[in-house]
Amino acid sequence: IDSSSGVPIHSFHGNGIHHVSVNGSFYPAKAKSRRQRWEVKPSEMANNTFNPIRAIVDGMKLTPNPDKPMIALSIGDPTVFGNLPTDDAVLQAMKDAIDSQKYNGYAPSVGYLKSRQAVANFFSCPEAPLEAEDVILTSGCSQAIDLAISVLCNPGDNILVPCPGFSLYKTLAVSMGIEVKLYNLLPEKSWEVDLQHLESLIDERTSCLIVTNPSNPCGSVFNKEHLQKILKVASKHCVPILADEIYSDMVRTTNHPSMASLSSDVPILSCGGLAKRWLVPGWRMGWILIHDRNDIFGSQIRQGLVKLTQRILGACSIIQGALENILNNTPQSFYDNTISFLKSNSEICFNELSIIPGLNPVMPSGAMYLMVGINMDNFPDFKNDVEFTEQLVTEQSVFCLPATAFEYPNFFRIVVTLPEEMMVEACGRIREFCERHYRPHSRNSNDLDQ
Amino acid sequence: IDSSSGVPIHSFHGNGIHHVSVNGSFYPAKAKSRRQRWEVKPSEMANNTFNPIRAIVDGMKLTPNPDKPMIALSIGDPTVFGNLPTDDAVLQAMKDAIDSQKYNGYAPSVGYLKSRQAVANFFSCPEAPLEAEDVILTSGCSQAIDLAISVLCNPGDNILVPCPGFSLYKTLAVSMGIEVKLYNLLPEKSWEVDLQHLESLIDERTSCLIVTNPSNPCGSVFNKEHLQKILKVASKHCVPILADEIYSDMVRTTNHPSMASLSSDVPILSCGGLAKRWLVPGWRMGWILIHDRNDIFGSQIRQGLVKLTQRILGACSIIQGALENILNNTPQSFYDNTISFLKSNSEICFNELSIIPGLNPVMPSGAMYLMVGINMDNFPDFKNDVEFTEQLVTEQSVFCLPATAFEYPNFFRIVVTLPEEMMVEACGRIREFCERHYRPHSRNSNDLDQ
Repeated sequence: IDSSSGVPIHSFHGNGIHHVSVNGSFYPAKAKSRRQRWEVKPSEMANNTFNPIRAIVDGMKLTPNPDKPMIALSIGDPTVFGNLPTDDAVLQAMKDAIDSQKYNGYAPSVGYLKSRQAVANFFSCPEAPLEAEDVILTSGCSQAIDLAISVLCNPGDNILVPCPGFSLYKTLAVSMGIEVKLYNLLPEKSWEVDLQHLESLIDERTSCLIVTNPSNPCGSVFNKEHLQKILKVASKHCVPILADEIYSDMVRTTNHPSMASLSSDVPILSCGGLAKRWLVPGWRMGWILIHDRNDIFGSQIRQGLVKLTQRILGACSIIQGALENILNNTPQSFYDNTISFLKSNSEICFNELSIIPGLNPVMPSGAMYLMVGINMDNFPDFKNDVEFTEQLVTEQSVFCLPATAFEYPNFFRIVVTLPEEMMVEACGRIREFCERHYRPHSRNSNDLDQ
Repeated sequence: IDSSSGVPIHSFHGNGIHHVSVNGSFYPAKAKSRRQRWEVKPSEMANNTFNPIRAIVDGMKLTPNPDKPMIALSIGDPTVFGNLPTDDAVLQAMKDAIDSQKYNGYAPSVGYLKSRQAVANFFSCPEAPLEAEDVILTSGCSQAIDLAISVLCNPGDNILVPCPGFSLYKTLAVSMGIEVKLYNLLPEKSWEVDLQHLESLIDERTSCLIVTNPSNPCGSVFNKEHLQKILKVASKHCVPILADEIYSDMVRTTNHPSMASLSSDVPILSCGGLAKRWLVPGWRMGWILIHDRNDIFGSQIRQGLVKLTQRILGACSIIQGALENILNNTPQSFYDNTISFLKSNSEICFNELSIIPGLNPVMPSGAMYLMVGINMDNFPDFKNDVEFTEQLVTEQSVFCLPATAFEYPNFFRIVVTLPEEMMVEACGRIREFCERHYRPHSRNSNDLDQ
């Protein structure tokens, strides 16, 4: 009771943190400043978390032709068709970790030292040596990317993101108030970076250049010379690199060094994980490899990453416990078989689609995707890639992801992990669909197809 | 080449996003606005991510007495001593999930429907029914708390956090620019909430009330009547509740309803997981249970949570796949044995410490902790709980967490999960330590102990 006003009010001394001042006008003022009715709204961050793939796919009318079984070429998950199981050594490593009962407790927020050491050993090379302390284990490559962007960028900064490119970068950045600048990849140059465009986008608030190599959605793999040119731009303008290398070594070329092995000065956070090469994307085992031979990140960025890992602990301890055996015991033949399967399927798909009038597939050399350009002029029935792929479901029960989801209209992405006979069947249906809707047409009258 | 100026410049048209305007003065202006040298600093968010436990423990000189083996009573991980293994049914469920090869691919970002259904079935009760759609699976209870705070709060908002309380709430909130207001718990009332203090802190920017029950670090369990009083305050001022119930059902009382089972209007996000009750904290299997019978959260908060789960995918698919069997096949005797062990150890610890002059243990009734007050006046050798516990390591090789880590000085927290003989040994050493440093002293001369 406040004796001066006669109004019952509350005055307390908290644990040295908050003190409520007391005077006669206190109670009405306090009442006014509080909520009178329920009004619970999602935060700006939740509202700004936007997954373009979901937004576009959810907005499509996907009604398959009931006479044809559905073939989804849209899902970037190599496990969905059951034809690409992980290796028995991987499963055994997991069961051994469970049986040991050693991995039920909390791991350090950056991961078990032994597991970090195993990753360091696996990826270390003379040009880009790694120690355990250079490795941070994360809940999937998504969290690796999240932490890398989070440690390098403040709201108002901008990051450089490939176009077409994986949508998560933008989803994360926009939710944190970071601007996204898209730099072009050139389909006519096997999706190499338009270096001049890239450079033109850099300003003083550019805090990170994201390079996805091998590329999702393009399936392209940069050679040494091109990576060196990208590094030169980053070096000239002092922009650190986030190298998304989740598809590293899932390649069908011989000239495919990692970004870090070519860098003499540019500091690099290389993000990767078990998801793709070991064919277990659901397990959420990812990592950041810190490459900083010129000590530009220094201890500050490392400490910043450690602090950020303490927000939510990272990867499951069982998988961390199995990691050393997974990396050391998986036979080379397992990796080789996956690559050879993807090579064969990519070639089948490319060859089948190349002869379809109006389509322009771009031959991939890595990852598990293939991008296909649509000459929209030849398909006047459809406004864009979204309508094109929507109707492809309606008529042929084949779903390809419209590349508008990667901010790259008039292309679509095909996943090449499905069984060969389904791949052939899907290509046949795409051909039937295109032949039905194709109209010979060109804006230049002297360039008519017929 | 810009023909008007003769200076080689770059002009490109991006994919409809960024266009570089070209004029004679363009190049110098551009050069000025870019970085000339390396300067990579961690973001504000990284700098503001602060783990008080780490900060305090890392700042302590912890040099055990070489003649006595170390006993750590500080670590909130029930697996560290090896005396509390998880149940065989839990391990078998994991191995079955691995062998099935059905859980290697991506799960939906909110978790497999079947696994969400299993959690809903497990926690549903007539007063607080749950459907699968009310459950979101997360990477540990930490991510559940992160998502709940992230969806409810904007920068500049404030949240109400118990004091003493689990440090993660503050770590997360401060890193997101959310203010933390600490409301007092009352040790003399078995750590019930100081309701008047709680209410005095509420203002129009209060977007969430966090209630930890059972409590870390206190080990207290609120009864029905007290929970109803908390709900009344939340209802009166229209503040939604984040109920951290990771220790739910790890209790030694009969009157321990969940928050949601008592709420008629207040919407509640209840955060939990496998960590503590199933004794596998490293597995990172958590969940949010959405209780919103009056449709105050509505679809907006639900959609906000779904969007936030798409930033990084949540829990490991293997554990999600095992979840139904873990919940359904773990025998009641497993839970009972854990509770009975914790009860026995808590009583031993409380009884041993109660008779030590200068210490005031508070009897817990849940979770796996016990808080002990220090009459600092009786220990003039030490300035505070940090110095007290530091010297306890130096002399007796016993480490208790100073409650300054929970913003509650002059207490320390004991973990009661260690084997009984170690518990007894540790209490004996604490007694020896206290007897050595105890000085009968009181500010009131008529209140002298001797």
